[in-house]
Amino acid sequence: MLIVGLDTAKKEPLYEQIYFCIKEEIRTGALPFGSKLPSARRLAKHLDVSRNTIDSAYGQLAAEGYIEARPKRGFFVCQVEELAELDISLELEEEEAEPEKEKFPYDFSPVGVDMSQFPYYIWRKLLKEIMIDDNSELFQKGNFQGDLELRRAIMYYLRQSRGVHVHTSQIVIGSGMENLLFLLRQTLGEKQVVGIENPVYTNAHGILKELGFGIRPIVMDAEGLSVEALNQTDANLAYVTPAHQYPTGVVMPVGRRGQLIRWAKEKEGRYIIEDDYDSEFRYHGKPIPALQGLDQNDKVIYMGTFSKAIAPAIRISYMVLPKKLVPVYQKTGKAFSCSVSRIDQKVLTLFLSEGHFERHLNRMRNIYKEKHDLLLECLKEMPLEVCVFGQGAGLHVIADFQIQNQEAFQKRLKEEGVMIYPLSLYYIEGVPLKEQYILGFTRMTKEDIIKGTGKIKDVLFEIS
Amino acid sequence: MLIVGLDTAKKEPLYEQIYFCIKEEIRTGALPFGSKLPSARRLAKHLDVSRNTIDSAYGQLAAEGYIEARPKRGFFVCQVEELAELDISLELEEEEAEPEKEKFPYDFSPVGVDMSQFPYYIWRKLLKEIMIDDNSELFQKGNFQGDLELRRAIMYYLRQSRGVHVHTSQIVIGSGMENLLFLLRQTLGEKQVVGIENPVYTNAHGILKELGFGIRPIVMDAEGLSVEALNQTDANLAYVTPAHQYPTGVVMPVGRRGQLIRWAKEKEGRYIIEDDYDSEFRYHGKPIPALQGLDQNDKVIYMGTFSKAIAPAIRISYMVLPKKLVPVYQKTGKAFSCSVSRIDQKVLTLFLSEGHFERHLNRMRNIYKEKHDLLLECLKEMPLEVCVFGQGAGLHVIADFQIQNQEAFQKRLKEEGVMIYPLSLYYIEGVPLKEQYILGFTRMTKEDIIKGTGKIKDVLFEIS
Repeated sequence: MLIVGLDTAKKEPLYEQIYFCIKEEIRTGALPFGSKLPSARRLAKHLDVSRNTIDSAYGQLAAEGYIEARPKRGFFVCQVEELAELDISLELEEEEAEPEKEKFPYDFSPVGVDMSQFPYYIWRKLLKEIMIDDNSELFQKGNFQGDLELRRAIMYYLRQSRGVHVHTSQIVIGSGMENLLFLLRQTLGEKQVVGIENPVYTNAHGILKELGFGIRPIVMDAEGLSVEALNQTDANLAYVTPAHQYPTGVVMPVGRRGQLIRWAKEKEGRYIIEDDYDSEFRYHGKPIPALQGLDQNDKVIYMGTFSKAIAPAIRISYMVLPKKLVPVYQKTGKAFSCSVSRIDQKVLTLFLSEGHFERHLNRMRNIYKEKHDLLLECLKEMPLEVCVFGQGAGLHVIADFQIQNQEAFQKRLKEEGVMIYPLSLYYIEGVPLKEQYILGFTRMTKEDIIKGTGKIKDVLFEIS
Repeated sequence: MLIVGLDTAKKEPLYEQIYFCIKEEIRTGALPFGSKLPSARRLAKHLDVSRNTIDSAYGQLAAEGYIEARPKRGFFVCQVEELAELDISLELEEEEAEPEKEKFPYDFSPVGVDMSQFPYYIWRKLLKEIMIDDNSELFQKGNFQGDLELRRAIMYYLRQSRGVHVHTSQIVIGSGMENLLFLLRQTLGEKQVVGIENPVYTNAHGILKELGFGIRPIVMDAEGLSVEALNQTDANLAYVTPAHQYPTGVVMPVGRRGQLIRWAKEKEGRYIIEDDYDSEFRYHGKPIPALQGLDQNDKVIYMGTFSKAIAPAIRISYMVLPKKLVPVYQKTGKAFSCSVSRIDQKVLTLFLSEGHFERHLNRMRNIYKEKHDLLLECLKEMPLEVCVFGQGAGLHVIADFQIQNQEAFQKRLKEEGVMIYPLSLYYIEGVPLKEQYILGFTRMTKEDIIKGTGKIKDVLFEIS
């Protein structure tokens, strides 16, 4: 007869204690394959518990496959010997800690945005509005391409502000560029070769590489990606950031845009991927319209994000597909639900359609313009003349400090708590003729821009 | 001299009107490549506008690459003739309408959950709590694997409720199974062949196929996926739903689990993908622990989701990787930011850690149990004896109505506004010996379950 040590003081109900005990006997082999268990009635009497308790324990054991009921004969132990050897308890390691990043008091990082101006109260208000009790539709699965009303709001924005020729059916919403480039790869199929700007936005390079795209680094000149060099490769795709090349800040002039469009037109299967990542920010004159708007051949895959214009944590990006790729995408893409939660989609829809986005952009443009102009002013104060590139737009500038000993320069800056980012880090192959530096200004306060550039000045005095 | 029709009544500022006009002249070829523009001073005088206005217009044209400044000589038209041929305005099609789905008053769909019980007010309260003004950290980019505190909350849940051996570093958060299977494919590399249950959860099949996994359909028996049949294929992965097979509802007994684990152990590179999609719902006895908890060989990739237990629109799923795959994943996965917004992650963290999830699950388990039991009762009332499978757990049952003419049966049901789902739709290859039907019960009210099964009864009377 089974010996079960029952303890009514324990938290576990009696049936669970019986279940665990029998399970252990089966797993250790004490109750071997084929043995018959006592009838529920006998065991109940033996343990002085109710018949229901035993029924529950046997029921659970049967549900998990430790025992089986044979009609009119009772319960028998199943074959589970494979598990005997497994009975070693796994040791769990120590929990990880969030990795600490080295922090610099004056970090001219080109990544991230100034969140101090984020209209939290509006975002909260919109969230509150849509979270009314009966809005249960939001918690059901939505359109795989993204909610139609969000795509419509993005369509209006892109037509008006970026000159993009677009229609809701061409728009795909995704949680970041990773997701969209993945969907694009599924749409285009295997064996895609992409020519990318060198130096390049390293994230994009990493994602494209991970996704199995063939990579051809293409040399940049003063007008952006060299179409001549692109033509000498087997690339059928060109990844470009024409509004404000990352990292060099080059704005691709209209002539070069035309060349690139002609390159795409020349062969079936060629496309331009236009990453319009920070095009909202231009500090003098009107924003330069997207390359997509110039193209009449259905050859541009346009990508944009709200990470820069709203917040990095708003994982919402979008892609505008050429018309002929839409049915191809819809066939393969249907398997993948939209990766953005419908609540986020709805909040963003209201944020766009109620004009909050435009107001927020205008405010941020002014704030960034002030920081941008201040940074340029400060860079004029250096002991040597500093050449600045890529100014007037975007969220960073490039500076050539005209010095020889880069190593000493970087070392001393770090010691002073200043972080600026060498352009050479962004090269896929080769190195720049002269080292230059990326200085982002969005996350710095004006005071820190002044203090940080002051420290750069001191170091330059010291080492030159 | 340029002729610009200026209209001070227009909304566009004067500099924009001048800019547009010159741009058009360049694009149409009226101002050919190489022509010199009038000096800003002369044009300002000619048009009777301020010098600044002309400077702005020229500045914008230069920024976009239509003209270039030659030092001390003035502005000249750039080469943009490539664009001349492009000057046809694109026609935009009509906007799409959200596709209308055929609606049935009595839809026994296995998809979706009962949202009438969703604790909207708690979700809203948590959202409100975390959206306080200074919580800007939430809008910055987070850990690519998912926020540590969310992974910790999931770890505790999985250890306690599912018997999963897990540590935060093994958990990856993603927006749905699509995203996680994609990350898994990146981790495992190419040429993965997966044995999947036949019939199967068609979404999983679609995603695996789209992701380029080789697919081997494996026959199911009364204990689930046949390990013998699996062994006869070249599959190195096995995709299983042991807690409650989708769609058949089979619970894989512990003996079969052991066999499957041994299969995985036999060769390097073999893994079991355990999709524990609806394991939270078991209506009699305690939930059956995950297969992952039995495995001591680091061979199980465990996947779970909050789509069933909370809401389909909460696009948050998780994956527990075997320890030896963690560094491999981290190397490739770093390129992909976590696809879930940090706000959603934070709300879910609180929902889990403050006990709301457990309470919600308990409530839903009771509600679903009532619906489940009612459905079984109703199915007993049929004119012929109905065999029911897969009951006692999950969000649907399988019924064999023991009739011959399935076509007439389905046709008449639809006419009566009843939708039940033929099992044959879930077969990747072959057909079932006998047609059976999936009846989901989560989204139906009790009244509709009674009325819907009443209609099934009427149709059965009529056709048999």
